[in-house]
Amino acid sequence: MNVDIVAVGTELLLGQIPDTNSQWLGQELAAHGLSSYFHQHVGDNGPRIVTAIRTALARADAVIICGGLGPTQDDITREAVAEVMNVPLVRDPQIVEFITTLFAERGRVMSPNNARQADVPQGASIIPQRRGTAPGLICPVGHKVIYCVPGVPYEMQEMFERAILPDLEARAAARGETAVIRSRVLRTWGAAESTLAEVLDAHVQELENSSNVTLAYLASGIEGIKVRLTARAADEAAALEVLAREEARVRDILTSRLGDIVFGVDDETMEHAVARQLIDRGLTLAVAESVTGGLIASRLVAVSGASQWFRGGIVSYASDVKFDLLNVDRGPVVSGRAAEQMAVGVRERLGADVGLGITGVAGPDSQDGEAPGTVFVGWAVGDVIEHVRLHLPGDRPRVRQYSAISALDALRRQLDQI
Amino acid sequence: MNVDIVAVGTELLLGQIPDTNSQWLGQELAAHGLSSYFHQHVGDNGPRIVTAIRTALARADAVIICGGLGPTQDDITREAVAEVMNVPLVRDPQIVEFITTLFAERGRVMSPNNARQADVPQGASIIPQRRGTAPGLICPVGHKVIYCVPGVPYEMQEMFERAILPDLEARAAARGETAVIRSRVLRTWGAAESTLAEVLDAHVQELENSSNVTLAYLASGIEGIKVRLTARAADEAAALEVLAREEARVRDILTSRLGDIVFGVDDETMEHAVARQLIDRGLTLAVAESVTGGLIASRLVAVSGASQWFRGGIVSYASDVKFDLLNVDRGPVVSGRAAEQMAVGVRERLGADVGLGITGVAGPDSQDGEAPGTVFVGWAVGDVIEHVRLHLPGDRPRVRQYSAISALDALRRQLDQI
Repeated sequence: MNVDIVAVGTELLLGQIPDTNSQWLGQELAAHGLSSYFHQHVGDNGPRIVTAIRTALARADAVIICGGLGPTQDDITREAVAEVMNVPLVRDPQIVEFITTLFAERGRVMSPNNARQADVPQGASIIPQRRGTAPGLICPVGHKVIYCVPGVPYEMQEMFERAILPDLEARAAARGETAVIRSRVLRTWGAAESTLAEVLDAHVQELENSSNVTLAYLASGIEGIKVRLTARAADEAAALEVLAREEARVRDILTSRLGDIVFGVDDETMEHAVARQLIDRGLTLAVAESVTGGLIASRLVAVSGASQWFRGGIVSYASDVKFDLLNVDRGPVVSGRAAEQMAVGVRERLGADVGLGITGVAGPDSQDGEAPGTVFVGWAVGDVIEHVRLHLPGDRPRVRQYSAISALDALRRQLDQI
Repeated sequence: MNVDIVAVGTELLLGQIPDTNSQWLGQELAAHGLSSYFHQHVGDNGPRIVTAIRTALARADAVIICGGLGPTQDDITREAVAEVMNVPLVRDPQIVEFITTLFAERGRVMSPNNARQADVPQGASIIPQRRGTAPGLICPVGHKVIYCVPGVPYEMQEMFERAILPDLEARAAARGETAVIRSRVLRTWGAAESTLAEVLDAHVQELENSSNVTLAYLASGIEGIKVRLTARAADEAAALEVLAREEARVRDILTSRLGDIVFGVDDETMEHAVARQLIDRGLTLAVAESVTGGLIASRLVAVSGASQWFRGGIVSYASDVKFDLLNVDRGPVVSGRAAEQMAVGVRERLGADVGLGITGVAGPDSQDGEAPGTVFVGWAVGDVIEHVRLHLPGDRPRVRQYSAISALDALRRQLDQI
């Protein structure tokens, strides 16, 4: 089965909002072994929506249309689909009743416009609405099919999982395409994509001969490189078993060649990795930040339950705040010594077990004779007081972002040793 | 002129990265009075790229293709465009020379693959590369045109502004479509889109009769609502004059009805507004953060030259850091009194003129009997020591983001009074 996506809405063409729906659907289709070769955006214009749908039907087995199912005169996906199906729209009295009741429960009177949401192309079936007012539609066209879902992401996603995915899987099964696809992401930090590719090259070539597992690299900007494993099997249990075996194998290769570069799985961020290590060891943390200016503290506080292990931080942006509050020696503040003293100072000031300090030059100007991108990360973990010097690429915002994740990664690696 | 966009890359279909290029191009085209009715995503597959380009050429006057110009075997936009143009690819020796030199300057040897980036469809002209290795292409096809640009956003954007936009404007002028379109964005915070629409309703109706200015609302999530003014005129000077007059008029209406809700113009963020006020008044700032955990400091440090007016901050996440370091009274720390004491305490500790304090509940759990979303912002500006209590919507990350911008807005309004 291959599935085209058509996202409807003039606001998408004007760039007023990002098209997160096509991205989400693309991920879901791929994760379930369904191909998607073309996506389109089209505005709220009847003839152009018809053109986009016909273009999609010409290229794909199935089409998912997001948006244009609302109550206003702008919402004309229903009319366009009926035209493509060459059938009239018929008002469904049960849907009218449902929407009327929804409004009544909220103490409001339904405007006549809302009844338009009960219009259904003849021959289509309904995906009952659970989170909004507009139902979804499953519209057969010859041996192909059009699905219509609302543009509101959380309504769309629920309908996709509940009704569209099962329908697509049934259609795929009827064509003899019966596989379960599951994937897992290993998150790495500190190695370039080309390095990972080189290290895993022999293994990937081995996989290509098997064919039930694939491996792909996803660059995630400052968050590192993800290695995605995708397994295809007859059922879920078999797919998960293949994934577990493959994850162990890939971790093994990476660790033996590149050290401890895998910091998390799937949605785990670097701050989750740090949090887990602190919790495991019963330690608390305090951070002193200059160049990052609160970014590290902010990432740590993003972890739910951070109060268990995070004491707080000091953003010592002005040099004399470093001297007065953190007991850093007077003198140049962009140095390894300053980073270490910041770590020690903040640990003491905030009564934490572990201290992290970071100082550097975000740019655009140099400071203390150091060029933009020069950053020192210091840590105080037990008796270990150390620092590392980094050269980070990019403009001011990128240097700051890279500094934050570099510091968290350095701390993660240090904690791993105790 | 109407312009289709084709974004090339299997990673877009798989949802591995968002398509920010189509969104950015959509905004730019609209801002310059050029229509765009269809966008497509297509993967790195020759025949399907050809299909997508032909589909676009059938519907539009011009097509912008983003991506697929790199050096690897996956990058096949050049081949696909040559097929659509029905011409051979010709290797351009000047581009080969340019790329070879680039590599030599970085002390690297150019691999043969990179020479593919010098392949040009016969009859196309070059957009010389300034930020990467791959040049862009301008490819006439009958009376229509295809533009090829790299998928890397900052390379794409530079080529669009330098070469594509002028070419599109020249083509529009040749067709007698000779208006200059300029726009300006007024950034507001603190009013809902429906409130802005109501307040500006009479004025918008007035504008609809004139026709050389339009007004649109752009929701920008936690960054507020943007009011975009777009003027169409015979030349740039006239367009800017219309914009200046219209900006004054809209500011006037908004201020008289809703107070000081316009905080910036175009790319100015809330932290820029705060920075400007501090600089104008020769004041320095320090912040004490609990619920935001460094987000406010981090936003302030993002402003280039922040060391002129920003002293630093204390992230007092644990309660006893508030007591010990900021002299907050022992007791419940989610209160207006605590926020004020944090502002006073951090101002004193860090030797700043102005202090800002923020405490609250990000969730998911309640704290000190206050529900998630309850936030107190306190400030100490001269003798004025005040706070405001807020109820913010959303989950943990949203409450924290809203808290940060709410606090900056409160400070901006207070500074405006001195």
